[in-house]
Amino acid sequence: MDSFAVAEQRSAELTRTIAQAPQNFRVLTGERPTGALHLGHYFGSIIERLRLQQAGVETFLVLADYQVITDRDTTDRVQENVHSAVLDYLAAGLDPKRTTIFTHSAIPALNQLLLPFLSLVTEAELHRNPTVKAEAAASGRALSGLLLTYPVHQAADILFCKGNLVPVGKDNLPHVEITRVIARRFNDRYGHVFPVPDALLTAAPEVPGLDGRKMSKSYGNTIALSMTAEETAAVIRRTVTDADRRITFDPATRPGVAALLSTAALCRGTTPAQIAEQVGDAGAGRLKQLTTEAVNDFLTDHRRRRQELARDPHLVRDILRRGTARAHEIAEATLTEVRETMGTTY
Amino acid sequence: MDSFAVAEQRSAELTRTIAQAPQNFRVLTGERPTGALHLGHYFGSIIERLRLQQAGVETFLVLADYQVITDRDTTDRVQENVHSAVLDYLAAGLDPKRTTIFTHSAIPALNQLLLPFLSLVTEAELHRNPTVKAEAAASGRALSGLLLTYPVHQAADILFCKGNLVPVGKDNLPHVEITRVIARRFNDRYGHVFPVPDALLTAAPEVPGLDGRKMSKSYGNTIALSMTAEETAAVIRRTVTDADRRITFDPATRPGVAALLSTAALCRGTTPAQIAEQVGDAGAGRLKQLTTEAVNDFLTDHRRRRQELARDPHLVRDILRRGTARAHEIAEATLTEVRETMGTTY
Repeated sequence: MDSFAVAEQRSAELTRTIAQAPQNFRVLTGERPTGALHLGHYFGSIIERLRLQQAGVETFLVLADYQVITDRDTTDRVQENVHSAVLDYLAAGLDPKRTTIFTHSAIPALNQLLLPFLSLVTEAELHRNPTVKAEAAASGRALSGLLLTYPVHQAADILFCKGNLVPVGKDNLPHVEITRVIARRFNDRYGHVFPVPDALLTAAPEVPGLDGRKMSKSYGNTIALSMTAEETAAVIRRTVTDADRRITFDPATRPGVAALLSTAALCRGTTPAQIAEQVGDAGAGRLKQLTTEAVNDFLTDHRRRRQELARDPHLVRDILRRGTARAHEIAEATLTEVRETMGTTY
Repeated sequence: MDSFAVAEQRSAELTRTIAQAPQNFRVLTGERPTGALHLGHYFGSIIERLRLQQAGVETFLVLADYQVITDRDTTDRVQENVHSAVLDYLAAGLDPKRTTIFTHSAIPALNQLLLPFLSLVTEAELHRNPTVKAEAAASGRALSGLLLTYPVHQAADILFCKGNLVPVGKDNLPHVEITRVIARRFNDRYGHVFPVPDALLTAAPEVPGLDGRKMSKSYGNTIALSMTAEETAAVIRRTVTDADRRITFDPATRPGVAALLSTAALCRGTTPAQIAEQVGDAGAGRLKQLTTEAVNDFLTDHRRRRQELARDPHLVRDILRRGTARAHEIAEATLTEVRETMGTTY
């Protein structure tokens, strides 16, 4: 059985255990605040977070602002992106009482864990991480020290709060694996401090961007959760389709048409083929109209709540202040334990 | 002119400027608490620190406890080593009012600087550092993530207090160079926060260990400052010499004899040749006796003060507590400035 199959089996077991004893789990999740959250985030991670919250699992959600600069030279708009993400989390239904939302840069005691953790891995192990390789290649830049050591920061993010459950897509399994290695080596070398966290494979559907590639801010093919209905209509209208009026689901030869079908299907809770059948011979114009309606219907409540929340000028700051305070306290406690276990107290 | 000659010329200029305006300088210096401080430390760095203190320059002295694990798997005896080092600093005459003594692991805001700084250097630049290469080779182990990124921690150590002067031997010039690169890149990219520090080449004599190799705890060839007169006599007695009763200074063919001559000469403020002449044909036994007297005479006051200071069971802890509090405050202020300059405040 390959490691992915093992992870799938383990995730199925975990899902049962979580349902029985949610209080035994603590989740770490998060994202890089490099732009507005979009439909890919909604279907790819937010729904899973809501599911875990509903199940009664405590969650820590890091807005990993230092990871913004793993592959770029600027922190432009990071404040705007963080504020926007917090509004989306709240609008989507994440409850700050059950989900601690904080930023990476606000928690020095978490970041300090990077130092002992870096001593536990070799350069060769850092290099073997496929995500580091892929992101370095995609950035088209020389590998920075921060990108190379990025899996170790993720280990610090997970372990600072003794997170034992990390929801990931298949691509991120290696990050959890290096975290498990670090936790085990620390415990073996200095004494037991950390849980060895489990990956929880999410069954999230892939959300294509409007050009058929992966939905990603860097491709400019996203539908942001914060767009208005009109903005949504405009970006969908600009999708490159073709002149064949018969609408079919064929991602390889008709990427734009297929992306619209997938998007509409996700928002309507149906399949691309069914949407295609519904449009029939009515052409790409009709498909775009139907997709716009599907997205706007799906996001109506989210956007209404988001607008209401945005009216309170202090809300986001207050949520972050409370999240940061809690994360700080937990990080300090863990760091104290680490220092005592390592004997670096004087 | 090669870079070493440039550094030498610059250091001569700096020495004049320091004498005129010591208040414009802040020194960062320190060591890894991997064992007891020895004569190599005394002649190699402590004398220089006393000189700078005397000149009126403020100094930060880091006991770099996380650097203990760059090339080993244990922090055994790190507490003992830190306490012992602080006693030696005080006995040697470092004044905690003018020299802030602290440990690396006690200052999370300093350590956090590692993250933005890692984004400013490439993996290739980290690899080019000759000290990293040499230490990795000497350790005989796979290069750890902590050793690879060690020059960046040193940059954080220097820049957290806006240190602008770093006393180094020739071997450590590349560390200061990477700190200069990091300071410049940060300032260019985000806004001016950091000074671009200067290396101050120390003219410290090389102190050979008792086997003729470099004096180093890992070679077991040291004379610790904390040894008693009897312990000093015993380690000197064990030095491997030869049967030639005529004592001559010839490091290549008579490493043990030459090491004893160098040690005695340093402690007596004379040259190895003069000591050799003094011993004449009296053989290695006489040389050992003379060297023992020279070392014990040289360290008498130091050891007496050290013993007196050691009687106060709270002294070291109090010094470290005060040093840590001051370093913490300065690190927090610098980190706040860094976060504001990068726009990562929410």
